[in-house]
Amino acid sequence: MSRVSESDTALGSRASTDCLCPPAAAMAHLSPFTESPEDVETDDCLPSYSYLYSPDLLRGQVAFITGGGSGIGFRIAEIFMRILWAPRWSQQVADARFDLLSFRHGCDTVIASRNTERLSQAATKLRATTGRHCLPLQLDVRQPQTIETAVDEALREFGRIDVLVNNAAGNFLCPASELSFNAFRTVMEIDTMGTFNTSKVVFEKYLKGESRERRPGPSSTGIMLTRAQAVPPQKLTLCSLLQDHGGAVVNITATLSYRGQALQVHAGAAKAAVDAMTRHLAVEWGPNNVRVNSLAPGIVSGTEGYRRLGGSSAEASGLVHTIPVRRTGTKTDVAHGVLYLASRAAAYVTGACLVVDGGSWLTSGNSVSAMLGIAPPRSANL
Amino acid sequence: MSRVSESDTALGSRASTDCLCPPAAAMAHLSPFTESPEDVETDDCLPSYSYLYSPDLLRGQVAFITGGGSGIGFRIAEIFMRILWAPRWSQQVADARFDLLSFRHGCDTVIASRNTERLSQAATKLRATTGRHCLPLQLDVRQPQTIETAVDEALREFGRIDVLVNNAAGNFLCPASELSFNAFRTVMEIDTMGTFNTSKVVFEKYLKGESRERRPGPSSTGIMLTRAQAVPPQKLTLCSLLQDHGGAVVNITATLSYRGQALQVHAGAAKAAVDAMTRHLAVEWGPNNVRVNSLAPGIVSGTEGYRRLGGSSAEASGLVHTIPVRRTGTKTDVAHGVLYLASRAAAYVTGACLVVDGGSWLTSGNSVSAMLGIAPPRSANL
Amino acid sequence: MSRVSESDTALGSRASTDCLCPPAAAMAHLSPFTESPEDVETDDCLPSYSYLYSPDLLRGQVAFITGGGSGIGFRIAEIFMRILWAPRWSQQVADARFDLLSFRHGCDTVIASRNTERLSQAATKLRATTGRHCLPLQLDVRQPQTIETAVDEALREFGRIDVLVNNAAGNFLCPASELSFNAFRTVMEIDTMGTFNTSKVVFEKYLKGESRERRPGPSSTGIMLTRAQAVPPQKLTLCSLLQDHGGAVVNITATLSYRGQALQVHAGAAKAAVDAMTRHLAVEWGPNNVRVNSLAPGIVSGTEGYRRLGGSSAEASGLVHTIPVRRTGTKTDVAHGVLYLASRAAAYVTGACLVVDGGSWLTSGNSVSAMLGIAPPRSANL
Amino acid sequence: MSRVSESDTALGSRASTDCLCPPAAAMAHLSPFTESPEDVETDDCLPSYSYLYSPDLLRGQVAFITGGGSGIGFRIAEIFMRILWAPRWSQQVADARFDLLSFRHGCDTVIASRNTERLSQAATKLRATTGRHCLPLQLDVRQPQTIETAVDEALREFGRIDVLVNNAAGNFLCPASELSFNAFRTVMEIDTMGTFNTSKVVFEKYLKGESRERRPGPSSTGIMLTRAQAVPPQKLTLCSLLQDHGGAVVNITATLSYRGQALQVHAGAAKAAVDAMTRHLAVEWGPNNVRVNSLAPGIVSGTEGYRRLGGSSAEASGLVHTIPVRRTGTKTDVAHGVLYLASRAAAYVTGACLVVDGGSWLTSGNSVSAMLGIAPPRSANL
Repeated sequence: MSRVSESDTALGSRASTDCLCPPAAAMAHLSPFTESPEDVETDDCLPSYSYLYSPDLLRGQVAFITGGGSGIGFRIAEIFMRILWAPRWSQQVADARFDLLSFRHGCDTVIASRNTERLSQAATKLRATTGRHCLPLQLDVRQPQTIETAVDEALREFGRIDVLVNNAAGNFLCPASELSFNAFRTVMEIDTMGTFNTSKVVFEKYLKGESRERRPGPSSTGIMLTRAQAVPPQKLTLCSLLQDHGGAVVNITATLSYRGQALQVHAGAAKAAVDAMTRHLAVEWGPNNVRVNSLAPGIVSGTEGYRRLGGSSAEASGLVHTIPVRRTGTKTDVAHGVLYLASRAAAYVTGACLVVDGGSWLTSGNSVSAMLGIAPPRSANL
Repeated sequence: MSRVSESDTALGSRASTDCLCPPAAAMAHLSPFTESPEDVETDDCLPSYSYLYSPDLLRGQVAFITGGGSGIGFRIAEIFMRILWAPRWSQQVADARFDLLSFRHGCDTVIASRNTERLSQAATKLRATTGRHCLPLQLDVRQPQTIETAVDEALREFGRIDVLVNNAAGNFLCPASELSFNAFRTVMEIDTMGTFNTSKVVFEKYLKGESRERRPGPSSTGIMLTRAQAVPPQKLTLCSLLQDHGGAVVNITATLSYRGQALQVHAGAAKAAVDAMTRHLAVEWGPNNVRVNSLAPGIVSGTEGYRRLGGSSAEASGLVHTIPVRRTGTKTDVAHGVLYLASRAAAYVTGACLVVDGGSWLTSGNSVSAMLGIAPPRSANL
Repeated sequence: MSRVSESDTALGSRASTDCLCPPAAAMAHLSPFTESPEDVETDDCLPSYSYLYSPDLLRGQVAFITGGGSGIGFRIAEIFMRILWAPRWSQQVADARFDLLSFRHGCDTVIASRNTERLSQAATKLRATTGRHCLPLQLDVRQPQTIETAVDEALREFGRIDVLVNNAAGNFLCPASELSFNAFRTVMEIDTMGTFNTSKVVFEKYLKGESRERRPGPSSTGIMLTRAQAVPPQKLTLCSLLQDHGGAVVNITATLSYRGQALQVHAGAAKAAVDAMTRHLAVEWGPNNVRVNSLAPGIVSGTEGYRRLGGSSAEASGLVHTIPVRRTGTKTDVAHGVLYLASRAAAYVTGACLVVDGGSWLTSGNSVSAMLGIAPPRSANL
Repeated sequence: MSRVSESDTALGSRASTDCLCPPAAAMAHLSPFTESPEDVETDDCLPSYSYLYSPDLLRGQVAFITGGGSGIGFRIAEIFMRILWAPRWSQQVADARFDLLSFRHGCDTVIASRNTERLSQAATKLRATTGRHCLPLQLDVRQPQTIETAVDEALREFGRIDVLVNNAAGNFLCPASELSFNAFRTVMEIDTMGTFNTSKVVFEKYLKGESRERRPGPSSTGIMLTRAQAVPPQKLTLCSLLQDHGGAVVNITATLSYRGQALQVHAGAAKAAVDAMTRHLAVEWGPNNVRVNSLAPGIVSGTEGYRRLGGSSAEASGLVHTIPVRRTGTKTDVAHGVLYLASRAAAYVTGACLVVDGGSWLTSGNSVSAMLGIAPPRSANL
């Protein structure tokens, strides 16, 4: 659809616009209402993108995305950065000689994970495609110290973190009876504690803003000692010193636990804990103007999870045809939902969970024996 | 914030852009992440509006909004129509001599309710502000025949209905022990059956598209008898005859039943039924490319519900300060959520419920005696 | 298992008691932890019954059960009445010459529905098997006047109603697109409004007890005018005049809406509304010592629903083997859950929903096309 | 009420039986339907107990209860053990010279926690009161090896474990922003991983029973190598070798996460993960005849949690009067719910969560500032 819209704009062809005909291939099954947005399976930027949000939606902001080097996290970073640097609109703007302005629209990102090489490659691609700044930082969400170091570095670079996307996670298929104590623990540590640790560090170091009741700390020198001092002086403004910063946290969770998906007790339990945390932190951090929400994707193609969790065999076996929206999800679908939750469009949304799964949790089966057929022999080998 | 952005664009003032200072009045409590978008309390169009979505997001579409003559429904209609006719962007476009094009961007709407006079006034305002077509149609969602007539009229006028917003509802405060059998029934009829009736009519008459397995009916004459024949010939295109139409249904529900809000058994039960219906219809109509979702607003100022359900006394008594996002919601907040669900941005969202309540159901009290203090003496006088 | 226990008691065979061997037939699949309690498919009383609760659990109480003439409602009535007249225990008691005492243990019941003939037959069976009183009363839960008449009659007869089981319901399989407006309405009227109507009448006429703040009404004569006057003088005691009566309401609902079960939008929406009502009434009526809970059964054999909703074809096709507790439910399973919720064992349970479905909603599929294969041609012919 | 019933039986006083008058003190607020069962605040056995379930409900079974040395766990152990040794009934039985029989009715228990001294004292009390065997065993649910040792010891002693109650937990009040990474982790480890670890060990070592598809393992000697070999030969019977054992797991969770209770992100997240685990394990272990359910208590007096979480100040401040069932819960209330879930009365219940909270989560407030007033200064000092 989107591509049709683009060319249609160029052609000005009235008829096709009005009836919104999808491309022939998709026509059998999809309409504009359920058709996938542009996506590519690999960890590359999109060759083209049709804006669904205002291109300046995240203007001037900085997003910190864990697990941002690949898969869903990579696409979220791209859509966030693209949102702010809009080739199509900037062309028009350029015609009107506002070209410099367009570069002020961008959202910069930090992408953070354990794999520095992958992060570095991802950052290079993202910068090249969007013209925005992307800072790759190594951390292990299980190690609070590494998060603190990364967040300090991000704040030194950008002076702010407005949006945190807790996307780092690990998963695999394994029956509970085969799952080692350690494998269960590891998933809890990455998904649940990792989300808590990262949220807490970003909140403490930036999102919560200034304490309203300032009390001299043990090392107080009499002058105001604040978080803001981590920001290099040239980035400081009066404004940032006086206001609550606020911001938005989006946790990527899952629908696995809604029905106790077979072979996923570790991930289901871990993500249910994150959904709970979303509500607790929304309640506690709301007064600091911090909104906290979850997004639960369904089966998303082009991800490590898709490969590990039997996505292709599910697709081959026709299971996709049981999903209400007759297709698997794309990374761009998820990114559009995260963008909604992170943006001012959701200024009154907090403590919520947005399910972006094509309705699949409503219709999918949950057979232990069928899943055992999909699970690779030693999938729990963490 | 939004107004700051606007003027900031004009001024090109770098400093204020970067720190995103909110206006002084809001500064004590709000940041860009939780600040209300533009809104006015009355049933009038917004004096200004900052686009959060791409202005062509609903281009070429038609939305049918019940209860669209006032309150939330009115604002949804406005945002939907504005989205497609963008003064700010069209100025740029106009500079590039694409002025005619801008008028192809609009979403037209049908606003439907029992009160023709109110509808007529609303349609006049909406047309004047947005430059799009708005068709006011009388119906009573409890009377299927009136819905059928209205939908036929809408299809005669526009040839399509892409988005249905089931927003018509009635509510009041009344303890269950004081609630008459008839009052309970009336709310169920408007909220639950009204949503079913309207959804079914719009689905049958348009959304489901062509039946793939055409079988000659009892009165078949040998030529194809289809829904499309309700559309006047001049509106028909090859496209509409061949494809599934698909579309998006958004049901406005409530969080009342999550905790059994005191004095609201009628509305809580009715809206819980609608949330259930959302899932059932998402499952059944997905194969027709129809997505069905709910949106549950919290306390929204500038609405009849706000006045009836004690909104102002809640605000006066400081209850607002228990809401995580320290304010009541606005009609524009809700409209932005409905727009997300209705648009391609949510192409993979179906069967979901998006709560847009500032987190208030997580923190609000639920005291029967406190509510009895708010309830007007004979509020159940339906 | 239970029968084994019984005979085992007689034999005093220690070894088999300890290992709790199930009968050979059940051994392949079931253990005492998941084996069905005694049940028969027909609307007849159980040939034998092993008590799981104390036989005097409902002593002196009266239960009002809608839809009590057949299926689940019949079995609930039986278990409630049996609970109180315990042949096994009474034998021991008789040995100790307390035989008269045993007749004071009984719970009496009212069974109420539209079908007087069926009610009459059921009451005869129940009296014969349990030795307790069972009063069959005609009503239509859609007609408040008929409920009021029945409740007045019940109070005349028994002077009290302690437990209300809202079990009357109607269901069938039908896709939403084939479902008439009237069919949807009828299910809402029976399931949702019927539950509200009956609950309200029983609450007003008995459960709420005396108003603590008695105020002279417009027709006050100076003497206390209370509900209790509907009870014939000889049944009145000082106690009933002074205390809140309190009681327990149990609503039979369903898991259908959790995932939007295909072809069940009518019943799913109606039962979701009842679950909501459960919470609202729990909140409002708690101060009157009334507890309100739901019980959501899964597939229950020996019921009209089982026959109508494709239970036997599901069983034949092996779907039962996808249920975690490898069998369909029995009416006795449901009755044991209702008894828990209605009894003092659940004195601190209110506003809750107990799912008694063998885990089936967690694992069952939800395929529109598969369900269409099960649905009889004109199933929505209400 | 229960005591009234008892004495009433002795007196045979008809009038008071019929109207079920509660004791005078409770009369103002409570009726038999919501009155608390017998309980004492301390970790002592009940001076009297009125049976609500059949006294042989758990006959011949063994229950393993973590955190069983105090609070809720202690009372669960007591009710489980009492259930099987019934002084009242045994008196009747004794009259009929079946006195020896009564000792075959008992459920034995293992109570397990870190505090051996407390366990030892508890076991002594439980044995003295109930006449059943209670084995105190030290373990730390965070250390799988200690669980394995304890379970091996339990199986050596009893030859079976039919019911597992995961009750061990830690909690305190602390805002997320003050909560150390380590404090969050510790609660997750005890509540979530502890429940997983214990469930897995008991499942592997007993509940799952014999593997139906026996495959020679790496150390196979050609003879059947089974779990049963961990049981000393004299305890083995043919039965235990051939059948699936099955059993029931009950996890004690919480309602904290439903609304993100302030100052409880750690416990709310941990318990939400356990509720998820309940569903996953119900699905996976159902074929082994293992049922897995959760029970979520509200505020329970006479517990460490009550003291730590501000129970008494809540009570003093009148918050109790906002609970629908106008009182706090008792340990016996919880035990009655656990008994239901663990017993044959719930043979068709699995993957469910039973909320036993008097409806309090439906009505309680959730104010960060109010909770900060309750929280002791350094409550997170783990």
